[in-house]
Amino acid sequence: MIENKNQSRTSLEQLGEFGLIDHLTANFPTQQESTIKAIGDDAAVLSFDKDEKTVISTDLLVEGVHFDLAYSPLKHLGYKAVVVNLSDICAMNATPTQITVSIAVSNRFTLEALEELYEGIKLACNYYKVDLIGGDTTSSQTGLIISVTAVGKAKKEDLVYRNGAKDNNLLVVSGDIGGAYMGLQVLEREKQVFLVNPNNQPDLDTYDYIIERQLKPEARTDIKQLLKDLDIKPTAMIDISDGLSSEIMHLCTQSEVGCNLYEDKLPLDPQFISTCEEFNIDSTTMAINGGEDYELLFTISMEDFEKVKANPNLSIIGHTTPKDEGIHLITRANTKIPLKARGWNHLSNESGEN
Amino acid sequence: MIENKNQSRTSLEQLGEFGLIDHLTANFPTQQESTIKAIGDDAAVLSFDKDEKTVISTDLLVEGVHFDLAYSPLKHLGYKAVVVNLSDICAMNATPTQITVSIAVSNRFTLEALEELYEGIKLACNYYKVDLIGGDTTSSQTGLIISVTAVGKAKKEDLVYRNGAKDNNLLVVSGDIGGAYMGLQVLEREKQVFLVNPNNQPDLDTYDYIIERQLKPEARTDIKQLLKDLDIKPTAMIDISDGLSSEIMHLCTQSEVGCNLYEDKLPLDPQFISTCEEFNIDSTTMAINGGEDYELLFTISMEDFEKVKANPNLSIIGHTTPKDEGIHLITRANTKIPLKARGWNHLSNESGEN
Repeated sequence: MIENKNQSRTSLEQLGEFGLIDHLTANFPTQQESTIKAIGDDAAVLSFDKDEKTVISTDLLVEGVHFDLAYSPLKHLGYKAVVVNLSDICAMNATPTQITVSIAVSNRFTLEALEELYEGIKLACNYYKVDLIGGDTTSSQTGLIISVTAVGKAKKEDLVYRNGAKDNNLLVVSGDIGGAYMGLQVLEREKQVFLVNPNNQPDLDTYDYIIERQLKPEARTDIKQLLKDLDIKPTAMIDISDGLSSEIMHLCTQSEVGCNLYEDKLPLDPQFISTCEEFNIDSTTMAINGGEDYELLFTISMEDFEKVKANPNLSIIGHTTPKDEGIHLITRANTKIPLKARGWNHLSNESGEN
Repeated sequence: MIENKNQSRTSLEQLGEFGLIDHLTANFPTQQESTIKAIGDDAAVLSFDKDEKTVISTDLLVEGVHFDLAYSPLKHLGYKAVVVNLSDICAMNATPTQITVSIAVSNRFTLEALEELYEGIKLACNYYKVDLIGGDTTSSQTGLIISVTAVGKAKKEDLVYRNGAKDNNLLVVSGDIGGAYMGLQVLEREKQVFLVNPNNQPDLDTYDYIIERQLKPEARTDIKQLLKDLDIKPTAMIDISDGLSSEIMHLCTQSEVGCNLYEDKLPLDPQFISTCEEFNIDSTTMAINGGEDYELLFTISMEDFEKVKANPNLSIIGHTTPKDEGIHLITRANTKIPLKARGWNHLSNESGEN
């Protein structure tokens, strides 16, 4: 939206086959001790300490499905593509260390556009101290596809899976939720306004927080250390990128427990609430079904209540129950309704990951 | 070409968001001891022995760029998508152990079509004893995109990089070359015939070997053991998926050596030669510039000549020289011409990987 329109345009054909990936990845120095060989050979070589396990996750981002270049600046997109994957590593209570990035691009993209994308990837690599160790560039017939694989490390005793929640655990979420989805609604609305009147300059200051949640989210790499400092080991953990509701159901199903989620405990940002009011939509529905909040959901023992209750980064939003009690939302009016995982259906052209 | 047209057709929408990936990956038991957690959490968890390094490579295959479903059966395609990545692990003299597979599909694909694809992936996993440990399914606006990341292991002392070749090393290639590219030419020709006359039944028996080289290649996972048995450690190694010529140039450039490649030493299959004659094209040009032969190119010390010379799996095709002598092809007529890396230019809509 606020890109420089006078940029130079170099077509990708001008660079030739191997020139492109070499050019794009030229300024990615490695920072992790575990990176023995990064880009430049048939494969990367990593070396972890003997007490460290290797953690791997992968995601595919497709233009027109996961992002819209009408309002996603390429630099932000590059940054977000990395963050999305690091979040999965964090959800294992592991530390991200390396990524590979492959892209397929149609020839409507210029070299300068891809440089923007890689600028964002580089920013994320620097911020999170992860090394770019490999990748592939190829052509696509339409649009841009980004495939990222993230690698991380964790000691065996630190790893947290989805299936470890016990009955009567506390359900905790980091940060606040729903913002990314409402940020997307604002951006979609502005896009429609722009299509009608291209001279309209949108004033998005009122929505800065939720737009940033959508366009430049962060991965909660800090939570592992925070939990360690609090002397807490979660019993189960998952990231909530597909929406709180569906991720609660995954965690409970895999752990074979039920759960009560309390509407009045959901951590909502004031800007998210006011935007829901402006759009005249129910904030709870958006908060539990919107996706792309790269926050972590986890369960902890009831004994850890005191350690967590006053922490500004963490909110206790419910508790687990025996499996046969089911999975419910307890509303502000104290009615109990079954939670439904609406998530985002990626097969009906919305976003979603596994 | 010989697919059953009476298959049932289940649309992807019928399965819902999480049903699809669960369904497709339901029958992938793990076989590797190093796989601690495969599919089913935010990330996979691997555990390698303390003296083993982790090796990682990734590739993106795009419909219309890397494959044409008019003549690539989906089962073969799934198999090949795995093989392509395992080959990169082999090129480090490492042993492949795990893969992740992500796909983006448009809704013209049915569930049954994706089951075929995963059947091929499973065949490859079983044959090469690698575990499917993760992935992602999403929608695409056009066509099929497959992203595979392969993980492998190797002891530090076994790893071979591209940059270790010394002056006066022997240049060795496994198997034979050019077949995959000529197989593709035959398939392209038959596709054109089919478009003109859909009732024409092609007789492809004469081309069985080169078509198999194209549609169902194998990764040379056997070479690591073969070299160990021969008591040889290569000084440098690379896979020749982008064409012998360009890979020789990569190896020589990174190793800072020159090279003489001998035309009369190129290992060519009789079927490849006869097909080149039929198409009236020069077999040497095809052999050194055609791609997708998932063979390994490596350099060894001159002292290892006796160990290699009679091995039916290996061909000595030249030797390295000081860097300033350049990279040349010595023709049958004993003329010396500079080697050019034509490779496959993926930005002009042909295949290529890095």
